[in-house]
Amino acid sequence: MDLKQELGKRKDFFDRELEKFLRKDEPEPLYNATRHLPLAGGKRLRPVLSMLSCEVVNGNIVDVIPLAIAIELIHNFTLVHDDIMDNSKLRRNLPAVHVKFGEPTAILAGDLLFTKAFESMHNLQTDLSVFKNVEYGLIDCVREICEGQYLDVEFENYKIVSEERYINMILKKTAVLFMYAAEAGGLIGGATREQANALSEYGKSLGLGFQIHDDYLDMSSVESVLGKDIGNDIRNGKKTLIAVHALSHAMGSDKKLLQKTFGDRDASDKNVQEVYDLFKKLKSIDYARYKAEEYCNKAKNALEILPDTDAKQVLLDLADYAISREK
Amino acid sequence: MDLKQELGKRKDFFDRELEKFLRKDEPEPLYNATRHLPLAGGKRLRPVLSMLSCEVVNGNIVDVIPLAIAIELIHNFTLVHDDIMDNSKLRRNLPAVHVKFGEPTAILAGDLLFTKAFESMHNLQTDLSVFKNVEYGLIDCVREICEGQYLDVEFENYKIVSEERYINMILKKTAVLFMYAAEAGGLIGGATREQANALSEYGKSLGLGFQIHDDYLDMSSVESVLGKDIGNDIRNGKKTLIAVHALSHAMGSDKKLLQKTFGDRDASDKNVQEVYDLFKKLKSIDYARYKAEEYCNKAKNALEILPDTDAKQVLLDLADYAISREK
Repeated sequence: MDLKQELGKRKDFFDRELEKFLRKDEPEPLYNATRHLPLAGGKRLRPVLSMLSCEVVNGNIVDVIPLAIAIELIHNFTLVHDDIMDNSKLRRNLPAVHVKFGEPTAILAGDLLFTKAFESMHNLQTDLSVFKNVEYGLIDCVREICEGQYLDVEFENYKIVSEERYINMILKKTAVLFMYAAEAGGLIGGATREQANALSEYGKSLGLGFQIHDDYLDMSSVESVLGKDIGNDIRNGKKTLIAVHALSHAMGSDKKLLQKTFGDRDASDKNVQEVYDLFKKLKSIDYARYKAEEYCNKAKNALEILPDTDAKQVLLDLADYAISREK
Repeated sequence: MDLKQELGKRKDFFDRELEKFLRKDEPEPLYNATRHLPLAGGKRLRPVLSMLSCEVVNGNIVDVIPLAIAIELIHNFTLVHDDIMDNSKLRRNLPAVHVKFGEPTAILAGDLLFTKAFESMHNLQTDLSVFKNVEYGLIDCVREICEGQYLDVEFENYKIVSEERYINMILKKTAVLFMYAAEAGGLIGGATREQANALSEYGKSLGLGFQIHDDYLDMSSVESVLGKDIGNDIRNGKKTLIAVHALSHAMGSDKKLLQKTFGDRDASDKNVQEVYDLFKKLKSIDYARYKAEEYCNKAKNALEILPDTDAKQVLLDLADYAISREK
């Protein structure tokens, strides 16, 4: 099975449906800002996950499209607002919405994406009790994403964060939407409660592994260690799993170096390089790699009770991909 | 009937339910920011309108509370985000959320209020088809509010705006939520389609009259003409009905004065006073007063088909109040 091809054909189908749903409207500049990020591409992992989860319980992929669109729009709404909060300039190799359209329009575009997500949910043709249940799940998800984003920003001001609190933060900020995509996709496909729980567990572990691998990717390339993003992560004191591990294991002069440089916005390139070297010495980068693999295996094990189908094989391969991709 | 007392007892009941719903949670600072504005009081016209609309068709007021909470939270979510966009410092005599908690937290608090509104909708005990219908109405409403807020900001850059486009803007920005509160409150109370339409028409005209009266209030006090807000409205070129009327009726030197001063951020106090005097001379302020009264009468007429009850009398008096209140 060619994973890239399997993901690609679902992504292409999804992209066409999204484009149809997110049609131009008035006032035109507001809708241009609203369409900018969601129609700029992206891996579409979350919607494709909901499609595969529907298929794996023998559901019809067409039925799950309104959910897939809603999930992708929620993801994009949070990115638009997060980029304002984090003052990020680029997203998917394009100017962030607030850079291109100004901050007031970007706030509104985010709000409108949030609205359009729920508008899409109302296109679900499932029976009303499933609709209400699945829609409530999405609301709950957005609440947790807001809480997670708050914690992510707040952690930058903390000297140290426990691994447990870090995992709780990325669970809310990233993993709950994967978890929801898998579970709700299954429910729309007609999953039993046991199957839906298995998919939820798969999505949760996949999301955690995915996020930890993101941290790892940013840190694993020596060439880019002094690149803008990584330097920024160290200078901003961003609490990735790598940093969380290093902060709790450093002793003596290592600890002093971290206390001095990690989170120092004016740290020199030399100091940033020293912190990076320390992350390697403490095996913090290896530890993140190991944890990502652990979650990947947990995700795959969760699928055991599901029938052996092509969709299941794609989900198994997707877990490996989530923690081995190079971007 | 004492209108103040009738509104007050419903507001008090609503306030207790809102306080219960918007309980403290973790992360605490995020929930403090989220609770700041909704629990700072306010007239609660929108939720009280939904309660009265439920009562007027003989519904049980308890049934409509989750809707009333959702409507007030949507209103507050838009205020939190609008205050960031407009850079407003004060709201309900308190620092705006972004002033007190910082902009990133304010964006998230707005998003969370949006989420909590839909969470509240899920507390409705009505049957599922009414739930789906009424919830879709709220989603549609938020879409229009976003569009209306965009137009309001955009109009500041326009030389002139027609009365028709101005009415369309305040319809979206303000009146649709009144319209929705009345119609959805009625539907939850068991309104027939005809009754729901009448309530919708009432809410629409009430909302338009309410917004025009807001413009009028800001301009009608000679003492405050050079006060910060009014000076700002003239300097920012804010398209109120008064300004829209004056811009389309001014001729010769009057027109030149408007072209020079209206929308000039550096206009002197003397020039602002001249613009204000011109608004009076062109009877633009009187015109806004007249239009507000017209909408108030339209609102009252819409109620004709509803049974004569105490709640109906409150709604009739409320329409008069909306365009005669002094703050």
